Amino acid sequence: MDLNADLGEGFGAWRLSDDQALLSVVTSANVACGFHAGDAATMRRVCALAASSGVAVGAQVGYRDLAGFGRRRIEYALDELRDEIIYQVGALSALAASEGTAVRYVKPHGALYNVAAVDDGQASAVVSAAVACGRLPVLCQPGSRLAALASAAGLRVVGEGFADRGYLASGRLVARTSPGALVTSVDEVCARVVRLATTGTLVAVTGETISLPVESICLHGDTPGAVELARAVRAALATASVPVAPFAA
Amino acid sequence: MDLNADLGEGFGAWRLSDDQALLSVVTSANVACGFHAGDAATMRRVCALAASSGVAVGAQVGYRDLAGFGRRRIEYALDELRDEIIYQVGALSALAASEGTAVRYVKPHGALYNVAAVDDGQASAVVSAAVACGRLPVLCQPGSRLAALASAAGLRVVGEGFADRGYLASGRLVARTSPGALVTSVDEVCARVVRLATTGTLVAVTGETISLPVESICLHGDTPGAVELARAVRAALATASVPVAPFAA
Amino acid sequence: MDLNADLGEGFGAWRLSDDQALLSVVTSANVACGFHAGDAATMRRVCALAASSGVAVGAQVGYRDLAGFGRRRIEYALDELRDEIIYQVGALSALAASEGTAVRYVKPHGALYNVAAVDDGQASAVVSAAVACGRLPVLCQPGSRLAALASAAGLRVVGEGFADRGYLASGRLVARTSPGALVTSVDEVCARVVRLATTGTLVAVTGETISLPVESICLHGDTPGAVELARAVRAALATASVPVAPFAA
Amino acid sequence: MDLNADLGEGFGAWRLSDDQALLSVVTSANVACGFHAGDAATMRRVCALAASSGVAVGAQVGYRDLAGFGRRRIEYALDELRDEIIYQVGALSALAASEGTAVRYVKPHGALYNVAAVDDGQASAVVSAAVACGRLPVLCQPGSRLAALASAAGLRVVGEGFADRGYLASGRLVARTSPGALVTSVDEVCARVVRLATTGTLVAVTGETISLPVESICLHGDTPGAVELARAVRAALATASVPVAPFAA
Repeated sequence: MDLNADLGEGFGAWRLSDDQALLSVVTSANVACGFHAGDAATMRRVCALAASSGVAVGAQVGYRDLAGFGRRRIEYALDELRDEIIYQVGALSALAASEGTAVRYVKPHGALYNVAAVDDGQASAVVSAAVACGRLPVLCQPGSRLAALASAAGLRVVGEGFADRGYLASGRLVARTSPGALVTSVDEVCARVVRLATTGTLVAVTGETISLPVESICLHGDTPGAVELARAVRAALATASVPVAPFAA
Repeated sequence: MDLNADLGEGFGAWRLSDDQALLSVVTSANVACGFHAGDAATMRRVCALAASSGVAVGAQVGYRDLAGFGRRRIEYALDELRDEIIYQVGALSALAASEGTAVRYVKPHGALYNVAAVDDGQASAVVSAAVACGRLPVLCQPGSRLAALASAAGLRVVGEGFADRGYLASGRLVARTSPGALVTSVDEVCARVVRLATTGTLVAVTGETISLPVESICLHGDTPGAVELARAVRAALATASVPVAPFAA
Repeated sequence: MDLNADLGEGFGAWRLSDDQALLSVVTSANVACGFHAGDAATMRRVCALAASSGVAVGAQVGYRDLAGFGRRRIEYALDELRDEIIYQVGALSALAASEGTAVRYVKPHGALYNVAAVDDGQASAVVSAAVACGRLPVLCQPGSRLAALASAAGLRVVGEGFADRGYLASGRLVARTSPGALVTSVDEVCARVVRLATTGTLVAVTGETISLPVESICLHGDTPGAVELARAVRAALATASVPVAPFAA
Repeated sequence: MDLNADLGEGFGAWRLSDDQALLSVVTSANVACGFHAGDAATMRRVCALAASSGVAVGAQVGYRDLAGFGRRRIEYALDELRDEIIYQVGALSALAASEGTAVRYVKPHGALYNVAAVDDGQASAVVSAAVACGRLPVLCQPGSRLAALASAAGLRVVGEGFADRGYLASGRLVARTSPGALVTSVDEVCARVVRLATTGTLVAVTGETISLPVESICLHGDTPGAVELARAVRAALATASVPVAPFAA
């Protein structure tokens, strides 16, 4: 099982998460590439730490929207969106190379993640960019349009589950505004992750057992207690004898 | 002799030069990389045109200053400047690759060009970034600190001359605010370029013959009559039987 | 009849329209306020010219989106949108005051104009900002949701017509991608404007006569021949003895 | 004695200081205006809290440099710098007005603060902007060029002292990189502030007693323990029976 988290999400004087601590726990770092967050110096620093910790580097690509942290839907011209994603991946690739590592995958951020999950246009822009950047694997939600289109394009698709989010019977996430959206108990989060890793299933908020074929668990880095939760999850997987490592290319 | 010009210096809805016309004249395109000008869609478009015209693509890197078009000196932390240059080169590299071409050299823009010509700190940042990006050649002013430091680092240094600028006896440019800064007659510009290409010399504003070892001539793209001047220069070189082609790697 | 145009839509080194020429024709200047276009120096310069020409200054407010020129829909938090509009109006107000004039009205730009015409949320954000900025009049499309909500809030609503756009029988504009969207003949544009000014009616693309209660005509500034068209319209109104002046407060 | 602090220095998803806690301690809030930090929603929120706490609102104006947090010197065209300062003050004024308060003074931030202290050009730009914005008082370092030029222009100049910084015998601050730059003991900071408030003097790092005519003490908001230190200073002034209130206009 792979553990991924969003890292390098500061900008200039601002910081969001404890990158150094998280890099000692996760196996894949989704590095913000400068459009919704992330500056060149931070990107290089995260790449250096990732390289020395054996953590895989991925391009966490987003809308050009620092003020909105990439969380607001923008109606992009699709060609432009594709080009901006290529731009971001290329920028991170050069910084990763300067630290002796490389970009291993693409993961959309925020509104782009959500829109590409349901909208063929923006999903295609992500896929087209991943193809242009050396056919990079795409890290995304199983069952999403992005997963389907990336698969159809012959790309490696890596499904991810959210450690601390509730799921609907359909396999989708419970909306953040609905009851059961967040799992707040550390023990419950750990139990869910171990179950997911060992059986590929979860219990939905409505009680059904659902199948969720994931190769990676997404840990949040910007919530209070994020580092402690991440450590607890990793320890629980160790206890359950689940090997933790970056997903295979 | 190589002919270079700054291209892709628009941003979003704004344009500065007639990229398409200039790409039919020059042999090297200094493509703006998004920090002082340039957006991802424009960068890709210029790369596509360059690739189909046999024009070499270079990274025209600048300060993060869209409002000032990279023309104002900024006192950068040098590590940060180096990382931002790597970022820009990487972004362009990925877009160039998506159009079947590659970044062949680095040329600093505006204030970075001027500061790196005299300041070892910012010159080192440029050199260090060029080294990190696969030891790219550096296009710059002969005799500048950037040329010296790039040489010392073992990089290929390509000297450039300015077709329409006056020179001091020292080989430096006449300041824009001094008499003789600009050569405005098309015939005189052409005569100077041919002389530079065939003899490696120019006449300074004070009358001395100076030696200027250049492999490339910089043509401006954003002045009125820029395209016509560029065509006249190219025609004059053809008449003088000077072969025009991208400089060798 | 008032004639308005979008002005000051450059940014830094970039220009879009011939502000000086347009300011000799129009009676109301919609000045871009820095979010989709416009920088402080340009804003002040346009205010100075407007003040000396007796042209009214309005705040052309837009999304925070320089790269997209404010033309892409963004799903804003409404409070944030309202605050950003107040911010823009305030910035322009201070620059206008420094040149002895003042902001007389608000006009949304691009995607904000289009969204606020049909969406109560974003329309309310515009209205709420106009109220906060001293109950400024709102310049907008007659029949739009923005017009309705501004009216309901007790604001002065100034309806505008587009000189060079086709209309549907409903009074809405023909979509730019549909036949009849643009009226390209200068004579026809002039005839339509005079008809609108003298009778308050137009002929829709489908042939019906429609009533369009407008107090201002919007002239485009960023199209080829924009200045000539603007002059022709103004001359046609003079010939028809229609007085041209800023709309009353 | 007035107590001022930099507030609202976040941007979008990012925060820097605990604005709410600091607003319960200081009497003047230097609100970041969006160029080096600060977004419209944050600016309005800080104004609302300031209004309800009786805290005076000042415009903390800076360079257009989010990535550098306004801390890097930029060689601005002075007209443009003046216009950008007017822009920032105007933006804050409108948001302050929407919350029933007003901008009472101008304080430059970061590199602009430092450059305007020694450079007549940038100091004049600040003065000229303050004059244009209704002759606002300027909060700055006693003895600085900005203080001199603001005085010469007939503006009210409010001198400020730094609670936790060492001073040279000349009355200037010890450079951050030199020994004695920072006073880290809470007791010592409090003793210095009380001495400054009651006698107008301080002891320089080299032992001399220096006179420092200040009406305001600057408290840092973005350092660890900032809120506690601010509370301690305020309590120490109360114990010494020094009244704490915004400076008079």
